[in-house]
Amino acid sequence: MLSSASDPDRFTDAYPARITALTRERKAGTKIVGTFCLYVPDEIIYAAGADRMILCGGSNALIPAADEFLPRSLCPLIRSSFGSIITRDDPQTAACPHVALIDLVIGETTCDGKKKMFELLADLVPTHMIDLPQKPDTPGALLYFTSELQKFRRVMEELTGNQVTDEALWREIRNANRTRRLLMRLFTLRQQNPPPIGGVAVIRMMQRQFQLHPTEFRRRLETLVTRLEALQGTNQERTVKRPRILFSGCPVTAGNQKVPEIVEERGGVIVVEESCTGTRAFWHLVDENEERDPLVALAERYLQIPCACMTPNDRRIEHILDLVRQYSVDGVVYATLQNCQGYNTERHRVQQALKEVGVPMLAIETDYGDADKEQIGVRVEAFLEMIQ
Amino acid sequence: MLSSASDPDRFTDAYPARITALTRERKAGTKIVGTFCLYVPDEIIYAAGADRMILCGGSNALIPAADEFLPRSLCPLIRSSFGSIITRDDPQTAACPHVALIDLVIGETTCDGKKKMFELLADLVPTHMIDLPQKPDTPGALLYFTSELQKFRRVMEELTGNQVTDEALWREIRNANRTRRLLMRLFTLRQQNPPPIGGVAVIRMMQRQFQLHPTEFRRRLETLVTRLEALQGTNQERTVKRPRILFSGCPVTAGNQKVPEIVEERGGVIVVEESCTGTRAFWHLVDENEERDPLVALAERYLQIPCACMTPNDRRIEHILDLVRQYSVDGVVYATLQNCQGYNTERHRVQQALKEVGVPMLAIETDYGDADKEQIGVRVEAFLEMIQ
Repeated sequence: MLSSASDPDRFTDAYPARITALTRERKAGTKIVGTFCLYVPDEIIYAAGADRMILCGGSNALIPAADEFLPRSLCPLIRSSFGSIITRDDPQTAACPHVALIDLVIGETTCDGKKKMFELLADLVPTHMIDLPQKPDTPGALLYFTSELQKFRRVMEELTGNQVTDEALWREIRNANRTRRLLMRLFTLRQQNPPPIGGVAVIRMMQRQFQLHPTEFRRRLETLVTRLEALQGTNQERTVKRPRILFSGCPVTAGNQKVPEIVEERGGVIVVEESCTGTRAFWHLVDENEERDPLVALAERYLQIPCACMTPNDRRIEHILDLVRQYSVDGVVYATLQNCQGYNTERHRVQQALKEVGVPMLAIETDYGDADKEQIGVRVEAFLEMIQ
Repeated sequence: MLSSASDPDRFTDAYPARITALTRERKAGTKIVGTFCLYVPDEIIYAAGADRMILCGGSNALIPAADEFLPRSLCPLIRSSFGSIITRDDPQTAACPHVALIDLVIGETTCDGKKKMFELLADLVPTHMIDLPQKPDTPGALLYFTSELQKFRRVMEELTGNQVTDEALWREIRNANRTRRLLMRLFTLRQQNPPPIGGVAVIRMMQRQFQLHPTEFRRRLETLVTRLEALQGTNQERTVKRPRILFSGCPVTAGNQKVPEIVEERGGVIVVEESCTGTRAFWHLVDENEERDPLVALAERYLQIPCACMTPNDRRIEHILDLVRQYSVDGVVYATLQNCQGYNTERHRVQQALKEVGVPMLAIETDYGDADKEQIGVRVEAFLEMIQ
């Protein structure tokens, strides 16, 4: 099994090259857009000829700088992200040089903390907000979200000076779908026992999806998938069977893989992630029927993402139960960030649903610090023993 | 000046009579709707021939029951409200007998905590959700919210078996506007120095607005306003001038007036509340032009409420600055509930705006407990001394 350490396809060292490329692109006039969320359709950004980089922070060190502006009762992801932006010109924060390259931030109204943080951000970097309806199945939600995407399209046209044609949108939709299908192939391979790649390695790769240029990401992903498919059936690993874990909850931001690392260090194997750095990022394709309005096709697809910001979020519960079956899951680790009100409240419904099908669940609520590492380790170990 | 203790118009003892009335109404077939928020247009409920009661809880004692289901990182208002519902058949919680009388809860997607709490509530009481756009000025928001109100109208028709006619909606709009105008007259009287009524008395009265039948509330309000207007100019109070406070932030739920009480006990006088139990409840009228679609007129008015769930919320900042001028405010007490991410994050922008006009602000973040009462008292006293 490929572990995160082997990193055979060099996803983890891709960041420095990416910064060099972004810097060069920007000098040549390309606009760089910063995003925080899967609900912002990349297709519109690329169709405008701009490039995109994720701004979600995973560094604990950047939180104190944010605490001067934001309440501590926000989650560490929001505080760290904001910290990386207010300290973007500080040489000590050179770990996030991409932040200084952003021409426009695209925010969204997914959760209260981010929504309000973007208002402070707008004082520092030009920011455009997309309003996301929160009841995806109500009549009117599709129309409203489509109108927000129309506005986003105009904003991108103004930023870049390029027209966002339907043709360019369909091209980017096809490209993004290609990446989604590759990810689906990769994830399907993990239904094998043992899976050909570990969860931490996959999470690190998913983190890169939001940093790399999509063409570059797809190229690396294709190499990886092809290689793993070729290995199929040849896996000689004959170790003790490791408990198969579904990892579910908040996104695992680059810089903070604490919980998945603990799960795999203590003897579990993560076979699938129900997360923004997991299935939420690629599970649904955009309809490629070019007789339709591409923005409606995009709105339809993006509204299907089962983030906890949606209500009711039965789609997520059903998705988790499907994954439990498809991936022969022994137990679920439900990992959330402190003060994430959406995922922490939804925990109860997920727990109930899993109880009904007899699948054990371990809930871990944590921050970006190391103080609880040992305590989490002990709990994870006890959980893995129990489900073995 | 009328204080809360004198309660000349018997707002505070109105609750038991209201419970008797609701119980009688319900036996006679009237449906009772429970709401949590100003964004739910009462006009639609009354136009359907139903009655309405607020479900926002202010009792600290009900929180432990909720903590079995909800994360502790939600605000006390949400936890207490949920606690009152899960314990509704428990004789020990007889303080909230109204909860057991509710036929339908109308929830809304204002904040993450409430939005997700409503999903658990739906397992206990029939619940309908209204999706509220969060960018009130974006094209499409009015159309979307109107479509949500159309759906709400149908839900009320199904619940009651009554048709919600435009005629009935206009009647209720005129009635609600009448109450709003009376409240505006009351609040305008408070621009006097000293004001004829204290802030705690007004807050207690505003809490009753969400409990009483609107006709009953308006009757009592009219008596109060008429009496205070007659007193105008006759105020003989010759005490030391008390600092005039704008009280701003989270709603002050019935059962928890801790902060405003401390402000007035320690020597300040609250002259205006920028709060759901204050100006947000009545500041805007619904357009009474009956040639329009009444639901559009309602949507327009309700989208103007400057709750911190909206983004950007410049409307609230401007409103606070207007109130500071109109009410000759010496200082602002910005009081929030713990873990309310919206109002706690917006604190920074309010603080900045007040700093620019040279008005001091004291920020207090608290829960429903008594443990911090003395500490808050000391801070309030120091603040009042400073601004005197």
